[in-house]
Amino acid sequence: MEQSATAPRVGVVMGSKSDWATMQHARDVLAAFDVPHECQIVSAHRTPHRLVQYAESAAERGLAVIIAGAGGAAHLPGMLAAHTVVPVLGVPVQSRALSGLDSLLSIVQMPAGVAVGTLAIGEAGAKNAGYLAVSILASHEPALRRKLEAFREQQTANVMEQTLE
Amino acid sequence: MEQSATAPRVGVVMGSKSDWATMQHARDVLAAFDVPHECQIVSAHRTPHRLVQYAESAAERGLAVIIAGAGGAAHLPGMLAAHTVVPVLGVPVQSRALSGLDSLLSIVQMPAGVAVGTLAIGEAGAKNAGYLAVSILASHEPALRRKLEAFREQQTANVMEQTLE
Amino acid sequence: MEQSATAPRVGVVMGSKSDWATMQHARDVLAAFDVPHECQIVSAHRTPHRLVQYAESAAERGLAVIIAGAGGAAHLPGMLAAHTVVPVLGVPVQSRALSGLDSLLSIVQMPAGVAVGTLAIGEAGAKNAGYLAVSILASHEPALRRKLEAFREQQTANVMEQTLE
Amino acid sequence: MEQSATAPRVGVVMGSKSDWATMQHARDVLAAFDVPHECQIVSAHRTPHRLVQYAESAAERGLAVIIAGAGGAAHLPGMLAAHTVVPVLGVPVQSRALSGLDSLLSIVQMPAGVAVGTLAIGEAGAKNAGYLAVSILASHEPALRRKLEAFREQQTANVMEQTLE
Amino acid sequence: MEQSATAPRVGVVMGSKSDWATMQHARDVLAAFDVPHECQIVSAHRTPHRLVQYAESAAERGLAVIIAGAGGAAHLPGMLAAHTVVPVLGVPVQSRALSGLDSLLSIVQMPAGVAVGTLAIGEAGAKNAGYLAVSILASHEPALRRKLEAFREQQTANVMEQTLE
Amino acid sequence: MEQSATAPRVGVVMGSKSDWATMQHARDVLAAFDVPHECQIVSAHRTPHRLVQYAESAAERGLAVIIAGAGGAAHLPGMLAAHTVVPVLGVPVQSRALSGLDSLLSIVQMPAGVAVGTLAIGEAGAKNAGYLAVSILASHEPALRRKLEAFREQQTANVMEQTLE
Amino acid sequence: MEQSATAPRVGVVMGSKSDWATMQHARDVLAAFDVPHECQIVSAHRTPHRLVQYAESAAERGLAVIIAGAGGAAHLPGMLAAHTVVPVLGVPVQSRALSGLDSLLSIVQMPAGVAVGTLAIGEAGAKNAGYLAVSILASHEPALRRKLEAFREQQTANVMEQTLE
Amino acid sequence: MEQSATAPRVGVVMGSKSDWATMQHARDVLAAFDVPHECQIVSAHRTPHRLVQYAESAAERGLAVIIAGAGGAAHLPGMLAAHTVVPVLGVPVQSRALSGLDSLLSIVQMPAGVAVGTLAIGEAGAKNAGYLAVSILASHEPALRRKLEAFREQQTANVMEQTLE
Repeated sequence: MEQSATAPRVGVVMGSKSDWATMQHARDVLAAFDVPHECQIVSAHRTPHRLVQYAESAAERGLAVIIAGAGGAAHLPGMLAAHTVVPVLGVPVQSRALSGLDSLLSIVQMPAGVAVGTLAIGEAGAKNAGYLAVSILASHEPALRRKLEAFREQQTANVMEQTLE
Repeated sequence: MEQSATAPRVGVVMGSKSDWATMQHARDVLAAFDVPHECQIVSAHRTPHRLVQYAESAAERGLAVIIAGAGGAAHLPGMLAAHTVVPVLGVPVQSRALSGLDSLLSIVQMPAGVAVGTLAIGEAGAKNAGYLAVSILASHEPALRRKLEAFREQQTANVMEQTLE
Repeated sequence: MEQSATAPRVGVVMGSKSDWATMQHARDVLAAFDVPHECQIVSAHRTPHRLVQYAESAAERGLAVIIAGAGGAAHLPGMLAAHTVVPVLGVPVQSRALSGLDSLLSIVQMPAGVAVGTLAIGEAGAKNAGYLAVSILASHEPALRRKLEAFREQQTANVMEQTLE
Repeated sequence: MEQSATAPRVGVVMGSKSDWATMQHARDVLAAFDVPHECQIVSAHRTPHRLVQYAESAAERGLAVIIAGAGGAAHLPGMLAAHTVVPVLGVPVQSRALSGLDSLLSIVQMPAGVAVGTLAIGEAGAKNAGYLAVSILASHEPALRRKLEAFREQQTANVMEQTLE
Repeated sequence: MEQSATAPRVGVVMGSKSDWATMQHARDVLAAFDVPHECQIVSAHRTPHRLVQYAESAAERGLAVIIAGAGGAAHLPGMLAAHTVVPVLGVPVQSRALSGLDSLLSIVQMPAGVAVGTLAIGEAGAKNAGYLAVSILASHEPALRRKLEAFREQQTANVMEQTLE
Repeated sequence: MEQSATAPRVGVVMGSKSDWATMQHARDVLAAFDVPHECQIVSAHRTPHRLVQYAESAAERGLAVIIAGAGGAAHLPGMLAAHTVVPVLGVPVQSRALSGLDSLLSIVQMPAGVAVGTLAIGEAGAKNAGYLAVSILASHEPALRRKLEAFREQQTANVMEQTLE
Repeated sequence: MEQSATAPRVGVVMGSKSDWATMQHARDVLAAFDVPHECQIVSAHRTPHRLVQYAESAAERGLAVIIAGAGGAAHLPGMLAAHTVVPVLGVPVQSRALSGLDSLLSIVQMPAGVAVGTLAIGEAGAKNAGYLAVSILASHEPALRRKLEAFREQQTANVMEQTLE
Repeated sequence: MEQSATAPRVGVVMGSKSDWATMQHARDVLAAFDVPHECQIVSAHRTPHRLVQYAESAAERGLAVIIAGAGGAAHLPGMLAAHTVVPVLGVPVQSRALSGLDSLLSIVQMPAGVAVGTLAIGEAGAKNAGYLAVSILASHEPALRRKLEAFREQQTANVMEQTLE
């Protein structure tokens, strides 16, 4: 498990090693904001017991947000949410045949009672899962909120400076 | 739990009571073929521990096939399959907004290593899950195979007799 | 504006009055958990200045989460997120012609840098936006977390007691 | 900002620099017809205030048409239209995962009261946004109309001359 | 042909009488803004010569905009655009089986060189075709522009006054 | 125009030169069966008068079938059918963004009264348009029917002989 | 089997009795043109031998066209085409969950070598299958061609006479 | 025909040689579990008689499961199921234009009475067809069941050992 030195506040998990190419973008955002985090493979279908264990221990281990990425019949985010009250954010990984439409619908169409906050398909979604996790943590961490505001201002400034051609 | 007198060979489970309108058609087929069966609500998201227990005890309880129906982000069939080597058949229940396309993709697009044999969306799929379960059992039960062949012949005969208008 | 007596922690906004039939389910969840909240129509297209004002004042007014529902070319959640660092949850309202697929894609496919945590299309999504908001607040409110855990246990118990037919 | 010498009649804006590969085809058409124009990045999500300013000053600055291109959850055309009565034409930029179907639905499915005239996904749509802008201006500029008619005749002649193989 | 007393500036045409339920909303907008207009059935497939005649005479008859609605394999807007340089706006009428997705794609996906500005599927699209036509005319009619601005302000005010429940 | 020496029985037309890569497969089938044919670019949008002329002269020129291929908002097959009673077969050319789903729906979803017999998207569809044209002609040409039967037998034989690996 | 007195030239078959509500519109067209025809249920899945027999005897029985309607995994048209060189036209019957998109793709996406000319989903497609069959027969029956031309002229006249409201 | 030395228990068939790249993954799974099997091209459209013969002799030849892969208008699995009571598993092969969505719907949307257990699109589906066949056979072969359990445990262990980066 890839992990920060301090106790992680955000867990980044994914269904398979091949999802790492996408999910590392969530990690990069958390790292850029110095949010303690951990990254791990948790497969809903191949390691279902690890999934239960991961989700059920999340609250007591101090995780404030879980970010879960998966593709195809993407059951990981929803099943984690079934086993914890820690907020779960889902990232639909782009799939081969159906380009992630299957991943998206499998993650977002949760029945009432167990929620997953779903982001865009692929890299943009992974980054935004990171930003959304930061914004959730920032509610109680003024310094983090200022950092987030500064990032957003910088992001705006970057666009303002861009020229065409 | 609705259950036959003898030890059930086929388990019919569904994610919510509202799925029963669809899934009872699977039950009806099993009943018509005198296949011992049981019917139960097992929600992947609301009763995840029951799901684990149901799937992990399935083989030793003598189940030869599990039929699972669910709608929307339909995780039940795939998660049952993750916890058992008993063959799992999935029935996508027609959902409200997306008409079951979400249910279908959530069930059928399983990653390599954990399989769900998926049937059509809705009532036809539920019936066919029943017929497919019967055909699986029939491999080792000559009497059941003859019954299935007789059903198919009768089905053919019924169409042959139909007239238009 | 429909509003709790104490300063609201969650804002529920929607693009049109016709969305209230869907979005009141988010309100009901917040009310059931005694989470102070407010409900208001904020149309991205018809009241764009109210949108800017609402989003830009959200943090200082003490909102910890904004829940935004909209249908069709649903720009409300994403545009609110563009104007605030308060976490925004988006609910795709079921649209007439395309059943909410347009609403879903318009909300979830945000570019990197501005995130919306998206829930399911329609009523289930509205309820889950409420539950996800509660879970976010619960990170720093042990009593609320216990309530949420109790709700989840009760939800499980309810399913365990259900019988078919 | 890329801009003609005379006061621009058409504004071409896009959500991100990467959209320029598509949107320059709109510019090329305007340039070919000697229509004064300007090209600029205006991101609905990253520079929302520039968007308001751009749209609200459009009429007084003499713009007769705004062409806006964006991809994914493409909010730019609709939000510009919300802030101006100058006609807005939208170009869905081809997105990575969903090939622009998300861009198309996010742009075209506007609610009654605020309109966006939407063109095809990608390069053909960008070109046609240019041609449609020309045809709108041509209503009051006989010389421009003749140029447009000549272009159409030439286009027809080009096809008439083509041979297979 | 339904027609204003003065020479029409906007032509509203549709592929079949059954489209009138949708397209009359375009007419209502034009009438509300006192824009001289005409309404007629022009079927691309059943009256192809009328289509040619209608489009080719549009400019000299003084039409500044053509609004065309059609469903299914909706060829009317694109074929009108092929025969005139007057700007054509297309309204995808909601179809029975595919809910207007076929109508939308048939209208919007025009090849480079002949453009159709496409609006939303159904009634909202018909209304917005009317508003977009008004905004195009308003460029050269200050009084009409003021009316359009007043409508937009009123529309905003209406939302501001709405209360939930 | 590419053309057989004898008077053509089948016309193969396409909306743009880039469709030739697909449509030449229809030509190849016709050539293999020695069916006199002609191939030509007829663009519904860029050469609408040639379209009218082509379709209206088709019967008297002795064409028994018209094969028309087009992509995107593919209006060519349906508009040809609007101008002739000669049977029209449509080939949806694979489009860039939407892979030919737009082409398919634009061609197949014709309203009652004017029919297009639609084939598969792309190369397979072009070939099959050729085979279907041959089978139509073969009804009154016993020698051609025998050739078609021989082709089908050979096709079967080819599969029978294939081995895996 | 419903059948004309003289030897049928067109066979109308369908996968199930419930398809008759759609397919009788094909029959009505054939009857209106006095084309000898027959109508029968031939289920690809429930009466596969009847399918083989029907298709293999079609040519010698004098059928010049087969019209086949089916819904869902609609295999009837393609399998008929596999067993005959008589031209086969396919009508996708509107299905319950997926509105006929499944029927359409199952019929139209045939591999190279065995063709089905596919019409629109539902009633319009059934009617057009009738009209296309008539146009195919009309190639060698001048009287039928004149009737078809008269129908088309009348159809045009009907539209020309229609008034709005 | 590729075949094991002992009488095959599972038949792997596919519609065309090009499907072998996908379907060999089913074969590999069967080989890894030492399940006697055979592999053959059986084209529903090009060798329809072989299809009938294959399916009708399957039971007496001792096949317990048939795995059938096909793409596009994929009729092979459903037509095999129409001719046998041996359980049929279907693998949608990824198609060129529509990425296998056509294959999936053509296979899974079977009408009530004739069932196909459908797997995911492409390679994952082919592998899982193999695993599902193994699990069906394993019901009556304790040694095979143990092997399957061991495979699943190993699969879990493999994931547990994986590290990111």
